Amino acid sequence: MSTPENVQIRLNQRPTGHPDENTWKVVTEPAPSPGEGEMLLRNIYLSIDPAMRGWLNDAKSYIPPVGIGEVMRALSLSQVEASNHPGFEVGDYVTGTQGVQLYALSDGEGLRKVDPGLGPLPRYLSVLGMTGMTAYFGLLEVGQPKEGETVLVSGAAGAVGGVVGQIAKIKGCRAVGICGGQEKSRFVVEELGFDAAIDYKTEDLKRAIKSNCPDGVDVYFDNVGGETLDAALACLAQGARIPICGAISQYNATDGIKGPANYLSLLVNRARMQGFVVFDYAASYGKAAAEMAGWIAQGKLKSKEHLVEGIERFPEALGMLFRGENLGKLVLKVGEE
Amino acid sequence: MSTPENVQIRLNQRPTGHPDENTWKVVTEPAPSPGEGEMLLRNIYLSIDPAMRGWLNDAKSYIPPVGIGEVMRALSLSQVEASNHPGFEVGDYVTGTQGVQLYALSDGEGLRKVDPGLGPLPRYLSVLGMTGMTAYFGLLEVGQPKEGETVLVSGAAGAVGGVVGQIAKIKGCRAVGICGGQEKSRFVVEELGFDAAIDYKTEDLKRAIKSNCPDGVDVYFDNVGGETLDAALACLAQGARIPICGAISQYNATDGIKGPANYLSLLVNRARMQGFVVFDYAASYGKAAAEMAGWIAQGKLKSKEHLVEGIERFPEALGMLFRGENLGKLVLKVGEE
Repeated sequence: MSTPENVQIRLNQRPTGHPDENTWKVVTEPAPSPGEGEMLLRNIYLSIDPAMRGWLNDAKSYIPPVGIGEVMRALSLSQVEASNHPGFEVGDYVTGTQGVQLYALSDGEGLRKVDPGLGPLPRYLSVLGMTGMTAYFGLLEVGQPKEGETVLVSGAAGAVGGVVGQIAKIKGCRAVGICGGQEKSRFVVEELGFDAAIDYKTEDLKRAIKSNCPDGVDVYFDNVGGETLDAALACLAQGARIPICGAISQYNATDGIKGPANYLSLLVNRARMQGFVVFDYAASYGKAAAEMAGWIAQGKLKSKEHLVEGIERFPEALGMLFRGENLGKLVLKVGEE
Repeated sequence: MSTPENVQIRLNQRPTGHPDENTWKVVTEPAPSPGEGEMLLRNIYLSIDPAMRGWLNDAKSYIPPVGIGEVMRALSLSQVEASNHPGFEVGDYVTGTQGVQLYALSDGEGLRKVDPGLGPLPRYLSVLGMTGMTAYFGLLEVGQPKEGETVLVSGAAGAVGGVVGQIAKIKGCRAVGICGGQEKSRFVVEELGFDAAIDYKTEDLKRAIKSNCPDGVDVYFDNVGGETLDAALACLAQGARIPICGAISQYNATDGIKGPANYLSLLVNRARMQGFVVFDYAASYGKAAAEMAGWIAQGKLKSKEHLVEGIERFPEALGMLFRGENLGKLVLKVGEE
């Protein structure tokens, strides 16, 4: 086998606000050769996630930031191209965190083999991957919805939000989604089965939440922060739970993050707002994935991936995410299956 | 008995920002006569509480606002002056919500008899009253401190904060208080037994919290909101709990409440922020009061009341509270014991 060429997107400079042309550096070099106990992985799909923005900041967080000059971190679905590792064979499909590059070395740490027969491969980066796990544990463990309650979710046409609403329905809740634009609203209600959608671009958020959640919001699953979080806080039911999954509206803010001015609604309504990191539930991923695969098989849970093709389009794909241009889980295809 | 004169402080006009001379109206009229099943109560002590500011706003909350022209709501310790009620005799001492006035009619609803032999009467408006209950349930039920953890509390020289820190110590935690000024800092450490105090008027809050809570803040009991809440959020330990008891720094804000810009620290630290209303724990008040009375008897819990005398000084006393001029529980004495 001749040595293939590896294309990598590396962090060139930390962005202030939105990433721009100075943020990234494209490096082309020969793919590395696996040493003893190692293997060479060929990346096929990369997960484009809001969390990526946080990884660019030089700040204490749940994992260290990506270093200047390092390959950008990304969750990945890859195929084993060459293996000196006893546990993996050439041709195996694996998920991991191989970064924005065409090839990566691995010693097997953090890899999970996937069965390509169970469904389309990109699904392992969406419903059956970290996205699905985030929705599953954030809603069920942190949000603790009970049958008959109202679950409101922002970023409802996005990767996590769409799964949250569908699981809420499976659990017998009323699911209301907030998203941007008519196409997304239609998608959320007609394709994903939400009870209602609110278009934050054209509707008065607070009024729309009140009319679509007449008994108040029991669980607000927040992906966006900002004005939307404030509007949801103004509409809580007694004892409401707010899983804080993310704040995509705030990640590129250059003048500081906007805190939720209505947070005292937590007091009046005996409510709680709780952050979580999906990695904490790693021990239960298998059980969750099996349950979700079952729901998919029964037609109760739909998985929607939004594919963008070409590693050079990584900066563009990340921009789409923050401009809300994706419908479903945004996945970058960087190699053939 | 000749009819005594009743002096009442009534709400004249809702304030914008701090209450002023137009907020209140003093009304003098003959004390009412109790009808069948009623009694006349003579108020002795009135509780001056931050929550009073919220009761002046025409907004949905956990109880209705005080109406224009109505006697200002206040928790009270009173003596039965005349009784047509089979359950109460002349001379009985009771706590209730008799408002800012010298005399009140009652049918017994919401009254609790107290034993004047168990301690000074004002204590029933502080440690053994709603203040103590708020500290007890907010810390133990919402904050859930574990032995060896660090409990940070704002308004530490105030009524609730001082009790929170002492209960934290009783439970084997490190107690750190935030308060304003040297006198309060000294009081909190030397008289109440906190491990450390931070003077927000002279210290850099974030730096001071970090140095006094080297392992991070496990429980932050928030009485004040604003910059202090943000500083505490920046210093959380993993899995931290933030009981939201109040936000005295924000109650008189005229340009909107400042939301906690650092709320995403909840996510990174898998932490939660939770509101509570002490009335929800009413069924357990008796048990809590008994336990706290025991701690007082053992010298583990100190009760400090700050008395102001004269019903006409109610507006002044309320102002003192918001300017942070009280040390311990602020109580207005309006009658002789």
